[in-house]
Amino acid sequence: MRAAVLRDGAMVVDELPDLSPGPGQVLVAPIACGICGTDLHMVGHAHELSAAAHAAGGGFTERLDPDRDVVMGHETSCRVLAIGADVDGIDEDAAFVAMPFLMTPTGVVTPGYDNDYPGGYAEQMLVSPRALVPIPNGLDPTIAALTEPVAVGLHAANESGISRERIAVVIGAGPVGLAIIAALSALGVETIIASDFAPARRATAEALGAHVVVDPATSEPIDAWRSAGDGVTPPVIFECVGVPGMLDRVMAAAPPHSDIIVAGVCIPPDTFHPSYGIFKHLSLKFVLGWTPAEFVESLGHLAEGRVDGNLLVTGEVGLDGVPQAFADLADPGNHVKIVVRPDL
Amino acid sequence: MRAAVLRDGAMVVDELPDLSPGPGQVLVAPIACGICGTDLHMVGHAHELSAAAHAAGGGFTERLDPDRDVVMGHETSCRVLAIGADVDGIDEDAAFVAMPFLMTPTGVVTPGYDNDYPGGYAEQMLVSPRALVPIPNGLDPTIAALTEPVAVGLHAANESGISRERIAVVIGAGPVGLAIIAALSALGVETIIASDFAPARRATAEALGAHVVVDPATSEPIDAWRSAGDGVTPPVIFECVGVPGMLDRVMAAAPPHSDIIVAGVCIPPDTFHPSYGIFKHLSLKFVLGWTPAEFVESLGHLAEGRVDGNLLVTGEVGLDGVPQAFADLADPGNHVKIVVRPDL
Repeated sequence: MRAAVLRDGAMVVDELPDLSPGPGQVLVAPIACGICGTDLHMVGHAHELSAAAHAAGGGFTERLDPDRDVVMGHETSCRVLAIGADVDGIDEDAAFVAMPFLMTPTGVVTPGYDNDYPGGYAEQMLVSPRALVPIPNGLDPTIAALTEPVAVGLHAANESGISRERIAVVIGAGPVGLAIIAALSALGVETIIASDFAPARRATAEALGAHVVVDPATSEPIDAWRSAGDGVTPPVIFECVGVPGMLDRVMAAAPPHSDIIVAGVCIPPDTFHPSYGIFKHLSLKFVLGWTPAEFVESLGHLAEGRVDGNLLVTGEVGLDGVPQAFADLADPGNHVKIVVRPDL
Repeated sequence: MRAAVLRDGAMVVDELPDLSPGPGQVLVAPIACGICGTDLHMVGHAHELSAAAHAAGGGFTERLDPDRDVVMGHETSCRVLAIGADVDGIDEDAAFVAMPFLMTPTGVVTPGYDNDYPGGYAEQMLVSPRALVPIPNGLDPTIAALTEPVAVGLHAANESGISRERIAVVIGAGPVGLAIIAALSALGVETIIASDFAPARRATAEALGAHVVVDPATSEPIDAWRSAGDGVTPPVIFECVGVPGMLDRVMAAAPPHSDIIVAGVCIPPDTFHPSYGIFKHLSLKFVLGWTPAEFVESLGHLAEGRVDGNLLVTGEVGLDGVPQAFADLADPGNHVKIVVRPDL
């Protein structure tokens, strides 16, 4: 099969051995697979991501040997190619979204972050039957592939415990920030402020439900909070940038008693002022991933139009286009999500 | 009046002008005033504390000019010397605990962190009538002076939202850590693990209600969590050390989904690994101070013996002994709290 491979710190396209499903496994053909920011970070930082998971005692990159090839991709819609022994109840004519997990003889693995189990940037992948969620009738599988990132946003919104009345401030309108905006909108949050340097991302934020958008080059997101509310009730701030120094800037700007949800994935050590937290009674909650229920709910949001996935897809490429797509997304400009379509 | 003064980065004893109460103010004579860790930090770091409050947009040191004299002390029991105009309902024969606030013509100030309004390391101070809480009959005013630090512990315990069943791990058994242990015990938390290098502090932790004490030189507090519970239900970890690097160590050791309450006051910038938070779904909540209700409740805990204040006082000094007490506490060893008694 053909696949886009992370090899020696670069994305290349290569021919790999075909896969076959073991007992309790399903062989699928990815229809569409979104490129995730963490995948972009893996190019050049796979050792750091692997080391960080080990230092934390576990995590999605813990089985990864950063010196070996890996086929990434964990935002995948697919159709079934073959089923292994002991697999029942899979409709082989249906299209599915695949949660990125697979039971193997050596434990549960995350296809896409495992050297031995390719992810969705390939013509074939293995998943567990329980990982497959049927795509409701009529939803474009390219849009259905957004289920995973939309679920990341829903999880962050749920974990924040936000009420409809509290003001949400979303810092960074990349895929994570936009998914959070979509989830907050679906939850009925009445005032959503979004901040991003890129005009197209601000426009997408508005289209997904942000009530106020801010260009941080010209004004402060927290000033928008002051204008929009009573200036006292603290906001819930979603940090969705994930680069060193961002958390300190958010804590510096946060009003007293703010709840800060850290959804940006910053892997290097970072420096901040605890005194901001102390004097302002701040709380920080780190969020990652989603629950299976949130995953299924997110697919429903896409299928029923509560989240307009068309707004999130800004490009589609075949496998041959993956290296260029990674290069383009390294400086995303107005891009949000490029989806890989192995059939193109 | 005589007072212990922070002057040019050192504690000295000096004669200062007598005070007189303005309208709506009460002049009191401190009976006892505990030495707080933040006061210790002020010696040599007053500029940092002042700058940190300004950077945070406010805080208890915001009115402080670190280049001028200041009389510290905000854990004060007292008796009334004189009442100003427009003050009613103060029993002039009673003893009180004073919350550290004072209404002045230029706003609310914090006596003890304000150049113009001395705190409790003095023979006189000014407080607002509403700041005075009568000491219940029979409680030693030296013990009553512990109300403020005990309230700091109660606030941290309350803000944690801990249930009786969840395991508490208290890192650092100085005054803040011990007050948290006392509060958790009063709340009925069934498993309290305390960690400190000093044997006497570990003994005090046990006497105040810790069920397990750990010497971090020989074993890990989180190992005690593993032994004490199911090894899965995440602990609530109280960080009560407040030096750079501690939060990163706590986050490195924390089990997944731990709630970390940051009660240690670390003023310098600090470096940590966000990846610990991300991969382990940690939350951090910074806590400071108390509510008036928690203050009154804490005095009740001391008066009714639910918190044995005698365990917290490891020394008493007169004003002349304050400079030496600060020197002794700079390397606290087995000390917990030294109380200043201006009448000694």
